[in-house]
Amino acid sequence: MATPASLPSLPSSDVVQALPGLGTPFPALASSHRHVRCIVKLGGAAITRKEELETVNEPVLAATTLHVREAMGMPHTCPPLDWSRRNGSLVADLFPSSVGQHLDFPNAFIVVHGAGSYGHFQASKSGVNRGDLKNPLVKAGFVATRISVNKLNQEVVRSLALEGIPAVGVSPFSAGWSTQNKALEHDNVDEVQRAVDAGFVPVVHGDAVLDHTLGCTILSGDVIMRRLAQVVKPSFVVFLTNVPGVFDRPPEDPDATLLREIVVFEDCTWTIVDPPFGGNSSHGVQTAVAAHDTTGGMSTKIAEAASIAAMGIDVFIVEAGTPHALEAMRGNVKNLKSKKTWMGTLIRSALGRSFK
Amino acid sequence: MATPASLPSLPSSDVVQALPGLGTPFPALASSHRHVRCIVKLGGAAITRKEELETVNEPVLAATTLHVREAMGMPHTCPPLDWSRRNGSLVADLFPSSVGQHLDFPNAFIVVHGAGSYGHFQASKSGVNRGDLKNPLVKAGFVATRISVNKLNQEVVRSLALEGIPAVGVSPFSAGWSTQNKALEHDNVDEVQRAVDAGFVPVVHGDAVLDHTLGCTILSGDVIMRRLAQVVKPSFVVFLTNVPGVFDRPPEDPDATLLREIVVFEDCTWTIVDPPFGGNSSHGVQTAVAAHDTTGGMSTKIAEAASIAAMGIDVFIVEAGTPHALEAMRGNVKNLKSKKTWMGTLIRSALGRSFK
Repeated sequence: MATPASLPSLPSSDVVQALPGLGTPFPALASSHRHVRCIVKLGGAAITRKEELETVNEPVLAATTLHVREAMGMPHTCPPLDWSRRNGSLVADLFPSSVGQHLDFPNAFIVVHGAGSYGHFQASKSGVNRGDLKNPLVKAGFVATRISVNKLNQEVVRSLALEGIPAVGVSPFSAGWSTQNKALEHDNVDEVQRAVDAGFVPVVHGDAVLDHTLGCTILSGDVIMRRLAQVVKPSFVVFLTNVPGVFDRPPEDPDATLLREIVVFEDCTWTIVDPPFGGNSSHGVQTAVAAHDTTGGMSTKIAEAASIAAMGIDVFIVEAGTPHALEAMRGNVKNLKSKKTWMGTLIRSALGRSFK
Repeated sequence: MATPASLPSLPSSDVVQALPGLGTPFPALASSHRHVRCIVKLGGAAITRKEELETVNEPVLAATTLHVREAMGMPHTCPPLDWSRRNGSLVADLFPSSVGQHLDFPNAFIVVHGAGSYGHFQASKSGVNRGDLKNPLVKAGFVATRISVNKLNQEVVRSLALEGIPAVGVSPFSAGWSTQNKALEHDNVDEVQRAVDAGFVPVVHGDAVLDHTLGCTILSGDVIMRRLAQVVKPSFVVFLTNVPGVFDRPPEDPDATLLREIVVFEDCTWTIVDPPFGGNSSHGVQTAVAAHDTTGGMSTKIAEAASIAAMGIDVFIVEAGTPHALEAMRGNVKNLKSKKTWMGTLIRSALGRSFK
């Protein structure tokens, strides 16, 4: 087993300051709320074509929608819940002839998605994440970014609803999520939980938000994941990405090794337990971050995932649209893990048992 | 001058119960907040083609956008703030070559819009306003309604942003607006005000929301108008509709008379002061309500407008896209009124001075 290493560095130290002390109790909702089985993050790089402005990766989004429905335990006969006009559709086509008793599901989910090629272009072009709303370019970029990420949110909600999933969009800026010097200050997790209690699947997204010190900033879907996990306490969390998991160097490097299991300790250090590197883990984890990725890319993801794992919640990082993604969302990885058939990265607390 | 008559009856007595006592002080934000000059409601019947599923009335929306920009005091040289892909546009076309110093404006506005042919079809088909989320049709309709009204919100925000108005969508469900037995219970007006303080124009809309007694209901843009006016205390309020104002009977009736000025008293009674009907006002105000209008149409609008006027805030009801709409939003009607050139309805408090 490798020796503990430090958490990968974050793009902003303020985000680190926002992490609650691991020894302190986390705020929790009353037990009368419906338990959330899984919070799943649809990575922007996975569900969009990241280098092409405002283009959904349709096959990946469609496959992911079916995986979410399957993992929620919904039947395959759900009527479509998107009754809106599509290209070429007639009004009469849009209303289902009947809506049966099929809108309940055993496993409650919350969906979060990133921005990918929606929003990132607009935000990086204008510097929204640095704040300063007095700068006309930043203010213009804030407006343009929100329009773009809302477009993607609408696409994701419609994709889920077309397959019968009762999805409801929740936009963080609308919902009053805000930051102070980039650290999360206010959220609306209670209302997200109420939507779950009412039988819906909230679909939250990375957004441009007000920052009480800087004016504005970008709130990434990964930071939203952590706060939701902290309050809602799901059984587990899944990050769907465009690569098979976390590697020890950029995945396109032929020598890159998939890290199958990472353990996080109470003191926020972590170690790779599978594959066993011996004393060789000091080379750390290198990842590729696209130049226009304003929210930090994979290193933010690992840090947020580690902070979720440190709460005792298993985190699975896996490639969207693959059978491995479905197995992770089903919560089947513990069984599969022993068979070594699952491809992905598990990040878990040292307090939980190892699957090795 | 006519004798005081009762308020027109509301579709739900619960809405009446939600009206605060007129003698009690209204909650107000600290004076450090930026003053809102006008809250303008873009009626669903005005900005959409109400009998045609999800179709914007493009000329009216475009004219209204220019009127809002003019009334806000923005220059005509604003760069577009919508940097999203449009049909046929190239990526390079979307970013303005420069963003100047033109994003400030002297007059702060809040925009609210109705649903029109977005949402009303889906809501009325499924009975969302009656609640009961255990009914699969209601639950499906809730999802379908929200998808549809969000589409319209995106259209309105993009229309404003294309003309350089820093518009940001605020979705009431996302923002935690909720009701108890149809009466408003929770809102996020403080955050709407914060968006104004940051220099944005919030664009709120009628929405499907959770109801803590019934499960769910429809929250109309008119009810949102009242709550916003109550807390934000704008200089005046404008309702843009598809007819020239409030008539004593359905506007298509050849004998219909435009009511130019209505005065509301502290005890919630009201009277028509222009034209002077003498003792003839007991025939009341008849209005046409489209069968699929789930939120009550004109009678709700008058009741909500009267409750705003009773707070001492002038309310103008005027046809969208006309010069009269621009004059109302500019706050010029007091001058024009004496010249009898303005076409529309003023509803004001008896405590304010008459313009006759």
